[in-house]
Amino acid sequence: MDIQLKETERIDDLQLKGLKLIQDTTGFCFGIDAVLLANFAKVKRGANVVDLGTGTGIIPILIAGKSEAKKIVGVEIQEEVHEMATRSVKLNNLEDRVQIINADIKTIDKKLEVHGYHVVTSNPPYMHEGGIKNPNDKKMISRHEVKCTLEDVIRAASRLTMPKGKFYMIHRPIRLVDISTLGRKYNLEPKQIQFVHPRSGKAPNLVLVEFVKDGRPELKILDPLYVYGEDGNYTDEIKEIYANENIGE
Amino acid sequence: MDIQLKETERIDDLQLKGLKLIQDTTGFCFGIDAVLLANFAKVKRGANVVDLGTGTGIIPILIAGKSEAKKIVGVEIQEEVHEMATRSVKLNNLEDRVQIINADIKTIDKKLEVHGYHVVTSNPPYMHEGGIKNPNDKKMISRHEVKCTLEDVIRAASRLTMPKGKFYMIHRPIRLVDISTLGRKYNLEPKQIQFVHPRSGKAPNLVLVEFVKDGRPELKILDPLYVYGEDGNYTDEIKEIYANENIGE
Repeated sequence: MDIQLKETERIDDLQLKGLKLIQDTTGFCFGIDAVLLANFAKVKRGANVVDLGTGTGIIPILIAGKSEAKKIVGVEIQEEVHEMATRSVKLNNLEDRVQIINADIKTIDKKLEVHGYHVVTSNPPYMHEGGIKNPNDKKMISRHEVKCTLEDVIRAASRLTMPKGKFYMIHRPIRLVDISTLGRKYNLEPKQIQFVHPRSGKAPNLVLVEFVKDGRPELKILDPLYVYGEDGNYTDEIKEIYANENIGE
Repeated sequence: MDIQLKETERIDDLQLKGLKLIQDTTGFCFGIDAVLLANFAKVKRGANVVDLGTGTGIIPILIAGKSEAKKIVGVEIQEEVHEMATRSVKLNNLEDRVQIINADIKTIDKKLEVHGYHVVTSNPPYMHEGGIKNPNDKKMISRHEVKCTLEDVIRAASRLTMPKGKFYMIHRPIRLVDISTLGRKYNLEPKQIQFVHPRSGKAPNLVLVEFVKDGRPELKILDPLYVYGEDGNYTDEIKEIYANENIGE
């Protein structure tokens, strides 16, 4: 395998069907969020999928591994990050199913087929733009709404999803009202929500949302997901999602 | 105490400061929802409070018992239910602080001072109107959106609440997207949410919402409330809220 690594990069084993991922140790490395989202998304055989703000390419690569999706496109605005994700795709010999494109989701209409996708996913930046010191910093772009707002993400997802198609997103519960109102504004009805709690009895710190394009109003809240058990270890559910505890943060 | 009871009525002891409540055993009797909502509402000394769709008057009576609110108005559209709630107020010698009025919340502007209240509460009908067989049935009116929709309740709450005042509601999680979008539509920002789960690990079946009039967007999800513990008994939190397990359903 003649994949070149830059000095600050490393290869991580995803512990899923031999999949691997290149990460820049000075940049944003994937966390539990990406793993939970890839697990939460229901992707049928032959589906066309887009991942908005794909970063390292972790979500397209995990979805390629767990599903029989026909084509998965990862969209990444940062040229350098896009290039690294492309190398990860090659490293896994997934070039026939996974493609990483260097594009801005705000003008994604020009690059990808409008309403052409069965499933759209996104693990967008969580933080508001306020107080950013270095807007060119790669970690900042991945974490903060520098290059795109929550509304940009939901609007782009709505443009790409076909009628009755699904959009899966993970975000912070603090934005739940924004998520609900923006979803409805762009005809993406939140239909299922799963809260992720650090442990039983504690408030959730992540929320997984399944939107249905043109879905009718009626929300189902799923059983909660607890990350840690009473004993301080990962719960069985999380272990099962990770398949192996060595993946991750 | 010369309070008259009708044949199908009974007096229940609320186990809180000697408070009592008249209920019609053939009508809608209060449940855990009302108790949770009265507990959830933060009512400061001297506050003016309105309870929309007050039914038996349970919420105004509990709030009178737990707080130093100056005045609590319960609004009830059903004449007969209003009359029964009025007798409960008398039974508790609360006439100076609690008043039950027979009015339609859709035209509440004409009866109560617009933006004149620090706190508004409501435990509205949960069910959609569809499929109602007997729209005059008292239980139906309390449970289904026959006389008022969720939007009517939120609009009325918005009209009555003063700037930065609070609106407290309990509802089903299935309506959470509606609650969020309608709240924002009427300038009642959902600021705190507490989910009520039958037990740890299970999806919530009730949601308590604190809206702030003209509040800025940012939602806090509180630690969850579990009704039953592993042993099948009420949790300590619920026991504390009830003060005594004998109240209720």
